[in-house]
Amino acid sequence: MNYRMLLYLLSVILLIEAAFLLVPMLVAAIYGEPVMPFLITVGILVAVSLPGILQKPKNTKIYAKEGYVTVALSWLLMSLFGALPFTLSGAIPSYVDAFFETCSGFSTTGSSILRVIEGLPRGVLFWRSFTHWMGGMGVLVFMLAILPQGGHAIYLLRAEVPGPTKGKLVPKLRHTAIILYGIYIVLTITEVIALLFTGLPLYDSLVSAFGTAGTGGFSVMNESIAGYNNPAAEWVISVFMLIFGINFNLYFFILIGRWREIFKNEELKVYLSLAAISVAVICVQTYHSFENFGECIRASFFQTTSLISTSGFSTRDFSQWPGLTKMLLVFLMFTGSCAGSTAGGVKLSRLLIVFKNTIREIRHMLHPRSVNTVRIDGEPVPEETVRSAVNYIALYLTVLIISAIAISVDGYGFETNFTGALACLNNIGPGLGDVVGPAGNFSGFSVFSKIVLSLDMLFGRLEIMPMIILFSPSTWRHK
Amino acid sequence: MNYRMLLYLLSVILLIEAAFLLVPMLVAAIYGEPVMPFLITVGILVAVSLPGILQKPKNTKIYAKEGYVTVALSWLLMSLFGALPFTLSGAIPSYVDAFFETCSGFSTTGSSILRVIEGLPRGVLFWRSFTHWMGGMGVLVFMLAILPQGGHAIYLLRAEVPGPTKGKLVPKLRHTAIILYGIYIVLTITEVIALLFTGLPLYDSLVSAFGTAGTGGFSVMNESIAGYNNPAAEWVISVFMLIFGINFNLYFFILIGRWREIFKNEELKVYLSLAAISVAVICVQTYHSFENFGECIRASFFQTTSLISTSGFSTRDFSQWPGLTKMLLVFLMFTGSCAGSTAGGVKLSRLLIVFKNTIREIRHMLHPRSVNTVRIDGEPVPEETVRSAVNYIALYLTVLIISAIAISVDGYGFETNFTGALACLNNIGPGLGDVVGPAGNFSGFSVFSKIVLSLDMLFGRLEIMPMIILFSPSTWRHK
Repeated sequence: MNYRMLLYLLSVILLIEAAFLLVPMLVAAIYGEPVMPFLITVGILVAVSLPGILQKPKNTKIYAKEGYVTVALSWLLMSLFGALPFTLSGAIPSYVDAFFETCSGFSTTGSSILRVIEGLPRGVLFWRSFTHWMGGMGVLVFMLAILPQGGHAIYLLRAEVPGPTKGKLVPKLRHTAIILYGIYIVLTITEVIALLFTGLPLYDSLVSAFGTAGTGGFSVMNESIAGYNNPAAEWVISVFMLIFGINFNLYFFILIGRWREIFKNEELKVYLSLAAISVAVICVQTYHSFENFGECIRASFFQTTSLISTSGFSTRDFSQWPGLTKMLLVFLMFTGSCAGSTAGGVKLSRLLIVFKNTIREIRHMLHPRSVNTVRIDGEPVPEETVRSAVNYIALYLTVLIISAIAISVDGYGFETNFTGALACLNNIGPGLGDVVGPAGNFSGFSVFSKIVLSLDMLFGRLEIMPMIILFSPSTWRHK
Repeated sequence: MNYRMLLYLLSVILLIEAAFLLVPMLVAAIYGEPVMPFLITVGILVAVSLPGILQKPKNTKIYAKEGYVTVALSWLLMSLFGALPFTLSGAIPSYVDAFFETCSGFSTTGSSILRVIEGLPRGVLFWRSFTHWMGGMGVLVFMLAILPQGGHAIYLLRAEVPGPTKGKLVPKLRHTAIILYGIYIVLTITEVIALLFTGLPLYDSLVSAFGTAGTGGFSVMNESIAGYNNPAAEWVISVFMLIFGINFNLYFFILIGRWREIFKNEELKVYLSLAAISVAVICVQTYHSFENFGECIRASFFQTTSLISTSGFSTRDFSQWPGLTKMLLVFLMFTGSCAGSTAGGVKLSRLLIVFKNTIREIRHMLHPRSVNTVRIDGEPVPEETVRSAVNYIALYLTVLIISAIAISVDGYGFETNFTGALACLNNIGPGLGDVVGPAGNFSGFSVFSKIVLSLDMLFGRLEIMPMIILFSPSTWRHK
């Protein structure tokens, strides 16, 4: 383990976090709110990170192990420090609650322990939503974009960008990171402008766009997006949730005019088909409860895009919707959207690989001597990728079951335990039922369960492996 | 596809079913109940199977495809015909309900659509429990035991005996089948005798033993085993549920004195440890609700063995137990017990392989050039077995999710949909909640959902693949 390089990278990450914190501090200053909570946090971050940054190690090579550990530790530390402004400002007095909220922010989950949101300081709420934006594309990708890197930094990108996806868009890693962040920033600004046109104030447009871009789901309204009572804004947010659930590589292909890549992309087809089916089913099942068809299609489209993109914004309490609709929404929560997007969930391309692999297995059982390859977008998928996709399902299920059992000590029912753990692990936000559903919140859980669910959110955002490697004793054993 | 051999084997199976039907017919005669429902069914079975049996095909070779199709079709046909006595006797007027009950019987699930059991004809209830016994070890294994077989009949055994387990105990397949059935019969008789000693009448001892041996869970009492109010009988049934959840190969090793195989068996250790942990946790969590410690430990042990063995007998409404206990029981429902037993579930050895494979994957990610083997009981597991175990989890999850979504059209809640589908797919019996929990039954579902759940039970018993191959168009396509 290259400890010096690990320390250096972590220090850089914390310094970047300090820099990002200046934005909500500015917002607080504009609204005449106390800036000390931010200033103290920035001070602590700078003090902690400076010693590590001043000593740049000579050996900057990192391998797989360092890559995973760096990414996992960065996210954990960012959440631990990022929770400070909430507690220091008094907005969230309990530090564990603040840690939960920050993990939920960075992991773009959107689950909240806040019972009442409106009335909290604007700077603090800005920071809360800003963590979504930072977590969506990832802070390590940001670091790769701004810093010239030593050897093997590709491991950092691989560990942070979700789903089975090709690592690099262009030969240079740094250029890949710049392109990804460039697309991210342009799309976010476009959404802000669109929201301003619907009549939303600048502040609300910004925080809503952060929540959409990161597919997070934090809102500054008690009733989430429903609180604005602004149909046009709901449409804008719906469309952008759909957009941010798509693999960013595809936007790059559009930019360089390789449209064929778009049309042959199977994951995109599955994504759009699933969304369309879901909207149709919800419309049919809930039609009677709406005043007119326009309202029905708006709510169906909003809730579909919100859950398939694992954003978790809500305009309706879908916990009250009919059986089939609810099960379908849970299914979308599980699948998530495309690899290489800012969304959570298992990722459709992974499920596509697993599905095609199953077909191959059946063929193999019937014709033991036949040799088949799993193909996606017409190209053969490496066996290693197939294996790791299938393994991921098993691993994912294990974490989900263990978490659901762990939080069941609080005595809630099966629906709450299961969909609560699912909502956190898949970075969705709300689950089903009165406790963790869109109308509820996570404040009722015990400290133990809140920590379990906080870790679940980080497990989900980093797709499990980095966190397991961080916590596995063999990683830290000297040889 | 060797259609002639397929027809021949199916005919033999149906004739065996006709022979087995003579037993409940005799019971009906003894109790002075109408024998016509059985006689008509036997007549139909003989008429349907005779033409196929008289023409034994010259080419008796069957391969994987024929093996899976034969097994899947046998179970489907056995259930379709086996449902007749229920409807003909008027005990279950609806044929779909009777089909559900028969699938539940043969697959050793134990889910029931009956609201009231006591008072139904004794012959019919005997048949209901007898299907558990037949399904536990499998009718095709029985056929292999009584008939000299042509080439490749090993595919039949593999497709019917659950879990990743070695196919043959002894070089001759027929002898393997005889040994398995021998152990099965001896253990069943032992339980019957033990139950007679506790004071249970012969009839009740027989049907309870059938339900235990097949790890099914049908009882002739409205309140399941609780209806006997007989603590000694509860202990006997608990112990035998535990026994029937163990790989039968181990009993064979005991018989031939290879004790080392027992002590090094990892699956057995996991099985017993899981059961012990579960009993302990339930005891701690439910202690206050019992009059004394003896009662508490009896109920905890009973419910643990009932669910880990996927029997589904109940002495308490565990749906009312505290959160952690309930989640733990759902976990046991999911894991099931040992491969090569009569129990359902995913099977512990499969989970053990998946778990060890995950450890290996983590190692591989940290040290990409390292080569590791998954070892169980000290021996390397073939890569093909590892692959198929991991794939099974993904496949299993797919079927579970699709079923839960499908039955959600009936408008029940998440807990009912999810644990109902789980209870059927894992061949347990009761799920959680008021509808499908121990105090409820499956009668409230629609015809569509009942058919989905019936197929789930067969999917679960045959471990998915045979049923998928049966229903896959490519199986039936001519080349």
